Amino acid sequence: MEKSALQAARSAYQPKLPKALQGPVTAVEGAATQSVGNQEEIKAMFPNTYGMPVITFEQGEAKSVAPFNVGIILSGGQAPGGHNVISGLYDGVKSLNPECKLYGFLMGPGGLVDHKYVEFTDAFIDEYRNTGGFDIIGSGRTKLEKEAQFESGIEILRKLGIKALVIIGGDDSNTNACVLAEYYAAKKYGVQVIGCPKTIDGDLKNDQIETSFGFDTACKTYSELIGNIQRDCNSARKYWHFIKLMGRSASHIALECALQTQPNACLISEEVEAKEMSLDDVVTYIAGIVAERAAAGNNFGTVLIPEGLIEFIPAIKKLIAELNEVLTDPTTGESRVFASKEEQVAFVKGNIAADNLAVLESLPKDVERQLCLDRDPHGNVQVSLIETEKLLSAMVATKLEAWKAEGKYNGKFSAQHHFFGYEGRCAAPSNYDADYCYSLGYNASRLISNGKTGYMSVIKNTTAPAAEWIAGGVPITMMMNMERRNGAMKPVIRKALVELDGAPFKYFASKREEWAKDTCYIYPGPIQYWGPTEVCDQCTRTLALEQK
Amino acid sequence: MEKSALQAARSAYQPKLPKALQGPVTAVEGAATQSVGNQEEIKAMFPNTYGMPVITFEQGEAKSVAPFNVGIILSGGQAPGGHNVISGLYDGVKSLNPECKLYGFLMGPGGLVDHKYVEFTDAFIDEYRNTGGFDIIGSGRTKLEKEAQFESGIEILRKLGIKALVIIGGDDSNTNACVLAEYYAAKKYGVQVIGCPKTIDGDLKNDQIETSFGFDTACKTYSELIGNIQRDCNSARKYWHFIKLMGRSASHIALECALQTQPNACLISEEVEAKEMSLDDVVTYIAGIVAERAAAGNNFGTVLIPEGLIEFIPAIKKLIAELNEVLTDPTTGESRVFASKEEQVAFVKGNIAADNLAVLESLPKDVERQLCLDRDPHGNVQVSLIETEKLLSAMVATKLEAWKAEGKYNGKFSAQHHFFGYEGRCAAPSNYDADYCYSLGYNASRLISNGKTGYMSVIKNTTAPAAEWIAGGVPITMMMNMERRNGAMKPVIRKALVELDGAPFKYFASKREEWAKDTCYIYPGPIQYWGPTEVCDQCTRTLALEQK
Repeated sequence: MEKSALQAARSAYQPKLPKALQGPVTAVEGAATQSVGNQEEIKAMFPNTYGMPVITFEQGEAKSVAPFNVGIILSGGQAPGGHNVISGLYDGVKSLNPECKLYGFLMGPGGLVDHKYVEFTDAFIDEYRNTGGFDIIGSGRTKLEKEAQFESGIEILRKLGIKALVIIGGDDSNTNACVLAEYYAAKKYGVQVIGCPKTIDGDLKNDQIETSFGFDTACKTYSELIGNIQRDCNSARKYWHFIKLMGRSASHIALECALQTQPNACLISEEVEAKEMSLDDVVTYIAGIVAERAAAGNNFGTVLIPEGLIEFIPAIKKLIAELNEVLTDPTTGESRVFASKEEQVAFVKGNIAADNLAVLESLPKDVERQLCLDRDPHGNVQVSLIETEKLLSAMVATKLEAWKAEGKYNGKFSAQHHFFGYEGRCAAPSNYDADYCYSLGYNASRLISNGKTGYMSVIKNTTAPAAEWIAGGVPITMMMNMERRNGAMKPVIRKALVELDGAPFKYFASKREEWAKDTCYIYPGPIQYWGPTEVCDQCTRTLALEQK
Repeated sequence: MEKSALQAARSAYQPKLPKALQGPVTAVEGAATQSVGNQEEIKAMFPNTYGMPVITFEQGEAKSVAPFNVGIILSGGQAPGGHNVISGLYDGVKSLNPECKLYGFLMGPGGLVDHKYVEFTDAFIDEYRNTGGFDIIGSGRTKLEKEAQFESGIEILRKLGIKALVIIGGDDSNTNACVLAEYYAAKKYGVQVIGCPKTIDGDLKNDQIETSFGFDTACKTYSELIGNIQRDCNSARKYWHFIKLMGRSASHIALECALQTQPNACLISEEVEAKEMSLDDVVTYIAGIVAERAAAGNNFGTVLIPEGLIEFIPAIKKLIAELNEVLTDPTTGESRVFASKEEQVAFVKGNIAADNLAVLESLPKDVERQLCLDRDPHGNVQVSLIETEKLLSAMVATKLEAWKAEGKYNGKFSAQHHFFGYEGRCAAPSNYDADYCYSLGYNASRLISNGKTGYMSVIKNTTAPAAEWIAGGVPITMMMNMERRNGAMKPVIRKALVELDGAPFKYFASKREEWAKDTCYIYPGPIQYWGPTEVCDQCTRTLALEQK
């Protein structure tokens, strides 16, 4: 692998560890825990892994540890720092006994099921220290949830003498890690399972988990770009930039980027849903800011849009639900087939409720057709294909034209569009994520050597210097409740949406009118690895506000 | 202005200067110069500014300089480092005499014509040192080419006692700077005009100018993003990313980014034109790489596309020329008016040559309609509205389906699209651009104090450490030739396209088959301002190869 100068220099960085992990540890156990909801049901489903205590590691005395083998899996979407979880785990197990081995399963959970793996060596690991991406072993979206998969997994785990499996993933993958832990515990297979909180979306967090890894780096990368666009916007003074940001189910990324860059507008899906805003309300809100700035001579600005916005608008959500229904043949459960596209559009319009039809017809023609026509392999409307940033700017333009005719607006409106997602998911980890991930991995080795299973590796107090970080483990069942998924109630880790009474949103809400009217842009610039600590070693604004 | 931590820390950076500019200078004159083409015509048009010698500054003896005032203008698109040209010029004139004043004209050349300006102070300048953007005084695209503008300009220049005007711009703006220099010299108005080579596109360079400022930072920013996408691509292994890069008339950005990141494919418009490739040739080339990688099990990859590509394909160029012609009413010179869109499409198809009709009908339906229908305010086809990255990926998908039916391809093809331009134009300047721009501005003060006009500020030998850089001036007429613009022959600075026999392209061409087949991605990461010199202080690959 040919390396860039930065990658070569950065490979020498030694990530920081919490003080407790810098030598031998002792595990301090808290009281028995409960799940966040549906305690009886969760307890019944996880008899072997429910109610376990929260663990905190403190400095302990050195003990000799017999060599053991560990496996690791990267699950789901890429997030900056995954390679450091692996190098931290590698260094952690080697520190316990240099004879320990670490295996990586290839291309996600499928590698466990299909018995595809590699063994890590010093030279192999050294190639990937402090780098972005999941390319060290690849990732995948196979869901580990069937007994046959678990049984196939135990075969290879036994063959390789693996005592513990670490699964790096988001809420779903960690839920499945816990199901697997429970299954292996119930069967007395002697294999521990440990989870690790990953996702750039930032929606895997709670009282026990301060943040999911990758969120810091991804948001800083997007904020670099938003800042650059804002500086251009403020120089040319002739465009409105509509910037969509990855994150289907929660608006943490948009909110964090807004806190870092202070754009003229930022939509928060959770607020749109809570206020039951219509698409027209959203458009009117943006157009109002455009008109206000135009009145002051500023025909330019920036709008941040969370990727999932459209699905949070109650009227659209309702429309999509009926579209999915009406296009499915109730007798076969399959998608209806039509002789032509025109016939399909006519059928849809003739068979949905009047209020939904009104919403459908309020959309631009191309979006209307797309909603009537395009289906994913499961027969569902392909909401993700809607270019929300273009939809909104087109509707804002129409609204402004109407206002111009009424004499309520007298400006120029010209829009540019951007969508950032893949640009940040595999960025090289910031110092924060490099340290946090390495600590999560290193910490997992201590959870393993202490015999834990069904735990998630957690590092807390991360707004303090790394030496003061608190290492430990949290039973995954503690974070669970029952939710409806694909028509059935399932135990899942509760997803963290943006809390409208939380400190980050409240700060944003207190400032946004000023940011809308005036030009208060902040230009964060690119992530720095060397240089002053206030530049290189800061956590996200979200975390700083939450922990204040 | 609220500053990010990076911006605050970076403001203290003292850009480096060539040794000759670190104290008093003496101007060493070379031989008389000639324009690069059409010598007689250029000489006749620029009797006062033609044939002047190239100037090189060497260390000289201190002389007392009477205070003088200078004006500066930012012209055209933003480029990283513009603020450093201004701070360099400010420090330069103040070093000659602290009583010197620097004025900035607002929102581009229009500020000179409309008498809108600010006076710079220490505190004002300090806010913008080492920052990106042109927001310090704004920029604009007003072309300075009419006598009335020049006369309006001289009024305010006299009122402010301005002895010299510095115009920061691309090839057109520097051409106009020279026309203005000639005009003021001919009229004996006593105002000097100095140009400064700016453009992220990298197409303002020649034997005298090593690079235009901003190219370094913009390309490094795009390469950061391309590298991040490639790392994602190589982790997920399921997408082809089609990445379009800003730059209408030359492919320097795409080529430089390819050299920095080693993608699977990169199109170079100049090569497409030289080889007279059809759109189908381009599509077949990309599809061939996709198929070759698929055969090796790699259903992923990256393709870089220069923004102007489509206009370099000879058949498309010819089609567009005829479309522009057929939609103009020859009697009025105005755009033809049609009763409906369908009528317009039918008229176009019925009135263009058979070969052009075949090309038109080979395009995807939406592009075909767009070319027949959408017009800019001058009645021209809006080529820039074509999303070339989506057009190409759609046509590649169609080609691959055909190959699959023929048994020549058996893979999966799923595409993602990106377009980077505004993301890099206002990035904070790299160390290279910060130093280069500051030196260009500082150097301009020496051209002024030496009484020069019609010169461009130039800094050479920039692949060496900054102390060894060579400072001086080049007569703008030396870079000119006559070219057809809007139907008339005009004196212009010759635009630098990618040279197919130049070292950067030849290196790329020697490597691209390997990069296509294997996965040789390089991940450059974000621009660093502190840290090892091999990370922070490198010039572009293009420049390094050109100067080798």
